Amino acid sequence: MFKKLLIANRGEIAVRIIRACAEMGIRSVAIYTEPDRYALHVKRADEAHFIGDDPLAGYLDPRRIVNLAAETGCDAIHPGYGFLSENADFARICTERGLAFVGPSAEVIARMGDKTAARTAMTAAGVPVTPGTDGNLADLDEALSVAETLGYPVMLKATSGGGGRGIRRCDSAAELRQQYPRVISEATKAFGSADVFLEKCIVDPRHIEVQVLADRHGNAIHLFERDCSIQRRNQKLIEIAPSPQLSDEHRQHIGDLAVKAAKAVGYENAGTVEFLVTDEGTYFMEMNTRVQVEHTITEQITGVDIVREQIAIAAGEKLRYAQADIQYRGFALQFRINAEDPKNDFLPSFGKITRYYAPGGPGVRVDTAIYTGYTIPPYFDSMCLKLIVWALNWEDALDRGQRALADMRLQGIKTTATYYQEILNNPEFRSGQFNTSFVPNHPELQHYSEKRQPNELALVIATAIAAHAGL
Amino acid sequence: MFKKLLIANRGEIAVRIIRACAEMGIRSVAIYTEPDRYALHVKRADEAHFIGDDPLAGYLDPRRIVNLAAETGCDAIHPGYGFLSENADFARICTERGLAFVGPSAEVIARMGDKTAARTAMTAAGVPVTPGTDGNLADLDEALSVAETLGYPVMLKATSGGGGRGIRRCDSAAELRQQYPRVISEATKAFGSADVFLEKCIVDPRHIEVQVLADRHGNAIHLFERDCSIQRRNQKLIEIAPSPQLSDEHRQHIGDLAVKAAKAVGYENAGTVEFLVTDEGTYFMEMNTRVQVEHTITEQITGVDIVREQIAIAAGEKLRYAQADIQYRGFALQFRINAEDPKNDFLPSFGKITRYYAPGGPGVRVDTAIYTGYTIPPYFDSMCLKLIVWALNWEDALDRGQRALADMRLQGIKTTATYYQEILNNPEFRSGQFNTSFVPNHPELQHYSEKRQPNELALVIATAIAAHAGL
Repeated sequence: MFKKLLIANRGEIAVRIIRACAEMGIRSVAIYTEPDRYALHVKRADEAHFIGDDPLAGYLDPRRIVNLAAETGCDAIHPGYGFLSENADFARICTERGLAFVGPSAEVIARMGDKTAARTAMTAAGVPVTPGTDGNLADLDEALSVAETLGYPVMLKATSGGGGRGIRRCDSAAELRQQYPRVISEATKAFGSADVFLEKCIVDPRHIEVQVLADRHGNAIHLFERDCSIQRRNQKLIEIAPSPQLSDEHRQHIGDLAVKAAKAVGYENAGTVEFLVTDEGTYFMEMNTRVQVEHTITEQITGVDIVREQIAIAAGEKLRYAQADIQYRGFALQFRINAEDPKNDFLPSFGKITRYYAPGGPGVRVDTAIYTGYTIPPYFDSMCLKLIVWALNWEDALDRGQRALADMRLQGIKTTATYYQEILNNPEFRSGQFNTSFVPNHPELQHYSEKRQPNELALVIATAIAAHAGL
Repeated sequence: MFKKLLIANRGEIAVRIIRACAEMGIRSVAIYTEPDRYALHVKRADEAHFIGDDPLAGYLDPRRIVNLAAETGCDAIHPGYGFLSENADFARICTERGLAFVGPSAEVIARMGDKTAARTAMTAAGVPVTPGTDGNLADLDEALSVAETLGYPVMLKATSGGGGRGIRRCDSAAELRQQYPRVISEATKAFGSADVFLEKCIVDPRHIEVQVLADRHGNAIHLFERDCSIQRRNQKLIEIAPSPQLSDEHRQHIGDLAVKAAKAVGYENAGTVEFLVTDEGTYFMEMNTRVQVEHTITEQITGVDIVREQIAIAAGEKLRYAQADIQYRGFALQFRINAEDPKNDFLPSFGKITRYYAPGGPGVRVDTAIYTGYTIPPYFDSMCLKLIVWALNWEDALDRGQRALADMRLQGIKTTATYYQEILNNPEFRSGQFNTSFVPNHPELQHYSEKRQPNELALVIATAIAAHAGL
């Protein structure tokens, strides 16, 4: 097993990886830029190294990070999610320097990052993809002709895109004409490639993704699926495992498809195969070649520690579990608590956390890097806490989510917590039957009245009295 | 279902019950005495009522509590553990006032509280008890004669005793002569009864207890066992579920015995049947007719919310689970974090908590009523936090416990946390093979060197700088 591992990330996922290292007896090395000087991952790692004043540059500099890992005697690097996690060059440089990269090979990252190449590989493996172009589009004329064959609406996508960027829905030829140059321009700027392709637009799909684990000895298993249909502008808000709207047969089928997909590309490590699901079909969307933000809920229902398994796989170990060992139990929900104001069009709300008290008790898990007195810097993403709840059945899990959200104290910034309480009260959500249109179809849920935290005023007074009395 | 429930308790178990109420849509009513004015259960309940300046009297006054419940429109009372939870009069008064008591009937509480009556009932039901007297002892002569038959060592016990009090081990007739008047005197003072009885002393037993649930419709199930062998002076320190040292056959057998015991006495609600286990046999010790401190670990391995089920049973609902529905998975450990100094013979260490940060991440649960700035009053028991960890296998659970203990920040008082880290490193403990002599046999584990919390000084400086800069 590794002796020392560098975490090429920050925030809650860096803390998550530090915890896995601690449990495995591996020394953890954190990196940080100036705004992260007092960040929790810096405090909790066994050692921490400064990588520059610029908030982002250091986290995005493969050479610098790999050099630091080598200099500090690390034998592995975990990229987390975001930043360099799906950067094939980073994986390659790690390997060249003799460092284990906790993820798949550079070749697989590159292949799955190229969306048309991924589509081709899936089709060859017998995994159904959304109807669309086989490769990249030559020009607007080809786009118009393909769209006519597919039928509108269509999705125009950047081949190297990701994270919900470089994607436009076009409902007519006129719209496709208008969007074509825009997407090319956006793709060139954001991803350094002008390649685009077309897919038939799957209307009101459910977003279902399957967690897979594969080792270098040819073993691949799935850990069942997550339902991530509760999204806003392609950003997931609430994730659920397993999906409350899949039959056992469908669950089995989609799990098998994901394992087939992983095996077809020689996948190694943890990965996620994302599907769009409608009553008409199940279509491969993309494969994420890293740990996902929402891996937590799969851990809750299966009991498997995905980050630990990632590290073990990267160290060359065989999977500890066969497919038959993987059983799911109950339902888990993850609420992404974002520093945003839902009532104000989800405007970011960065700032100092004046008070934080973690919810606890049965079936509650918290993954976060915040603490009382911590100031959320404005340079990174707005997610500041993952609240995960679990219960044996769906209704109890919903009630537990409602309770845990109310239990939490997070003051000084606006968050999405109260918005999620509104969603939990919504009958359509509670029915478990919803698709990716749920959030846009329910703008009224953003316009809740501010709820007074019970006893909040009493607490302020009590604290003041206690302080005055020198208690 | 109930509309409003009064919690006749304080501390973490009051918070635990408030959380169950919140999830069930039941309004919660807290009570508090003067030292608990700023306690978390007061802040978190839907309403809270003051019951007197004396720290303890109000919590121990059945009439006052029942009157308050009636006046505030409650339809149920949950007694938690300790205080009035095993007071048959309290249960009777509740019922007389038309309030549901969340626990078994007054008759069953009284019967199981009388240790000789409980022994008789168990023997009649075919549940093996420790060899000993059938009823109470008439005098010292009978005691000496019975002891001669049983063989030394013997245990001299107060019939109405409990919580480890009113019990003496006697290794010889001389010792029995000496202890006999002492135990009678102690029993009279502490329990208001001079009745005593004798049992053969089971040497170096494992303490194994089985959680049962029974409804008023004749259904009774068990939720597997807990291993509570890690004790100091009859006080449990670390509890484990399931026991790492029971075979599947033994597990099945002891579970069946517990259900048989519960059915034999017409038990209703949650209860725990405690056994002493040696290689020679499995002996009924006592039944606790309330929720236990360590119910949490059973919740972690079975997924069943025991407090929720307690309330549902008291409301007359049928058990939601048949025995076949109850499956256990993985291993859970609970660490009772006590405000005590292990290096100083576990001297209580009450005071103000200057900093508390809850451990989090996968497989970690915290049940507590403390918060940063809270002052632990000296009038109640010293347990201030329950840290529960879970993992799919035994070794991972141990590693997770080690990590979570290190992850936690709890400053301003001395606690047993570091002592538990020492226990987790002990090869005998890690082997899963230990009995109730583990703690007394390993005094060296109390004499650890203080571990510097990594980066602790850096944090103090950072906080000071941030405060100075007005951040």
